[in-house]
Formats: sequence, structure tokens, C-alpha cells
Amino acid sequence: MKYEEKILSSEYPFRGRILNLRHDTVELPNGKTSKREIVEHSGGVCVLALDENRNVLLVRQYRHPYREEILELPAGKVNPGEDHFECGRRELEEETGYTPGRYEYFGEIYPSPGYCSEIIRIYYADELKPCGQHLDEGEFLDVIRMPFPEVLEKVLSGEIKDAKTVTAILKYQVLQGGK
Amino acid sequence: MKYEEKILSSEYPFRGRILNLRHDTVELPNGKTSKREIVEHSGGVCVLALDENRNVLLVRQYRHPYREEILELPAGKVNPGEDHFECGRRELEEETGYTPGRYEYFGEIYPSPGYCSEIIRIYYADELKPCGQHLDEGEFLDVIRMPFPEVLEKVLSGEIKDAKTVTAILKYQVLQGGK
Repeated sequence: MKYEEKILSSEYPFRGRILNLRHDTVELPNGKTSKREIVEHSGGVCVLALDENRNVLLVRQYRHPYREEILELPAGKVNPGEDHFECGRRELEEETGYTPGRYEYFGEIYPSPGYCSEIIRIYYADELKPCGQHLDEGEFLDVIRMPFPEVLEKVLSGEIKDAKTVTAILKYQVLQGGK
Repeated sequence: MKYEEKILSSEYPFRGRILNLRHDTVELPNGKTSKREIVEHSGGVCVLALDENRNVLLVRQYRHPYREEILELPAGKVNPGEDHFECGRRELEEETGYTPGRYEYFGEIYPSPGYCSEIIRIYYADELKPCGQHLDEGEFLDVIRMPFPEVLEKVLSGEIKDAKTVTAILKYQVLQGGK
């Protein structure tokens, strides 16, 4: 099977600062029409940054959709047209106050492909040097250094739930675990 | 730091079949007000199901937000009030035509906590028995059996990008890899 749904019409019930809500009418393979609810998002980045003692730089921040504070890798939203690679480095520097000597692409995920167009790019960083923290207006977070094995334990126990953080930590463990 | 943003008012620019878009006005810790764009979603489930030869049951389906076909674990949306555990089993049976002898909770993720309230629960299943596939109206997918090492390779290479699938495969590898 190979197909693409034909878009018959699109409406935008909401256009916001971080996302748009698009409502499509599409034609299905069986010729019937259906509706699709799409969250348009310009993309996210996050950085798995390790210091010289193999501590992971995490941020703890309040996340309004869940109304709780959660642990995540430093991350941010890519603005339309912005370079993902440089955006990740900038977010790391702004949120944690460290700039990386080594900085590499580490993969990407589709967070919820049924309705959301966001792609989250993951980068790896080490050889960190202090450069000063610069949080955005209205951004409040704590930076936490945590040994990698402890972060992995929190991922496996379910205490860390954020998909990009879980992906980066587990992938690093699978790739580096035996070394 | 420990805080919760106080909701001053909420509006719903869109209420749909699979998600609602909520627009909140909140009070920040510094006393200023800000806007929050929230995608309300009642939750997702997916199942990592292994057959007797350690093949993973995957589905290939068209995902409209990306306008491409992608490989994922069998998955679905939890209806409000529905039991997540039973929903996972039902989705596995409907999409793949197999019912599990063993069926267990395997973790959960927050796909994109900056704006989305969805929680995706992951289950593990094996001892599979045929029960007949029953796809929903308007649901089109192919079921693919793939050896676990090949699925892991596609996760590590980036060919498989779906966050719930990546999480389940990497977590299974970390927990079982040495055995």
C-alpha cells in the first residue's frame, strides 16, 4: 500500500505564537472524505550535554499542559526559517550558561505523528565552557547537573517522561553502554 | 524553585474529534501575565508486541501531518474515561489481528510537554494468538513483522522516528540487551 491523502480544503481555526491549528478535509483511498486535525509547529531542538565528569545538564521547569515541573534536556522552539543546528547551541547556551567545544547531530523524533507536524532534533554536546545564562522574558527554570547513570535510572523508572529526553538518554546508553 | 502558573482565563478557539485547542491567560511568578497555547488530548497507547521468533509487530501507515507513511508500533487514542490498559490491548487486536497471552505496562512518555497534554502509555505483549484484524472505518495500514535487531537498527539510523516506538525499542534493548 502506498498513498497520500488528497487535501480538498484547509481551514485555520487558530493561529498562535507557537502553533497553528489546521483543519483539513481530505479524500481517503476509498473515495470518501474525512476531517484531519493538525497541529502545525515549526520544530523543536534539544541538547544532550555532558560535562567532564559525565554529568548530564538538565533543566527543571514548570510545564503548563501538565501543571507540573518536569526534568528535561535543555530545549527550545525553532523559529520558522531558523537553522536547527545553531538553534540547539543557542538554547543550550541561554538556558544553561555553557557553550560546547564539541557539538553534533544525534537524531530526531516525531513526537505524536497522528496529529502533530513537529520534528524534534536532538544534538550531542561536550567540552563545555561557561558563557553566562540568558533566559528569555517569562522563562523560569533550574539547571541541574546529574550523573548519567542516575538520569538513566530516572528514565527507566519513569520519573523522567519527556520523549526527547528519554530518547536521547536511551540512545546514548545503547550506543555507549558497552564502552 | 517551585511554582504553578495561575490560570486567569481560558478560551477554546477549537474543539475537535481528537484534540481541543485551549488558549490560557496565566500569571507568571514575576506577577506579569502571559498566554499559553495548549493542545488538549485524552491520551495515547501503543504496544511493543513480540512474536515467538522475536519479531516486532509494526504498522506502516500514512500520517497526514508529515504527508508520509511511517513505521510505528500498533497504537491508538484513548477515549475520555476509557481504561488505558484495555485500550492498548484492543488496538493491538484490531490493528494486527493478534491477542496477547502476556500483556504488561512498559512505561509512558510526554510527547511534547511545552504545549501538549497528551500522555502516551506503552505496553509490552507476547505469547500472541491470532484473533482477526478489525480496522476502523477510514483506517488503512499494513502490518509488518520485523526481527527486533532490524527494528533497533532502524531506530538508531533514524529511519524510525516515531517517539513512542523509539522509546519502546530503546528501552527494551537497554533492559534486555545483555540477556
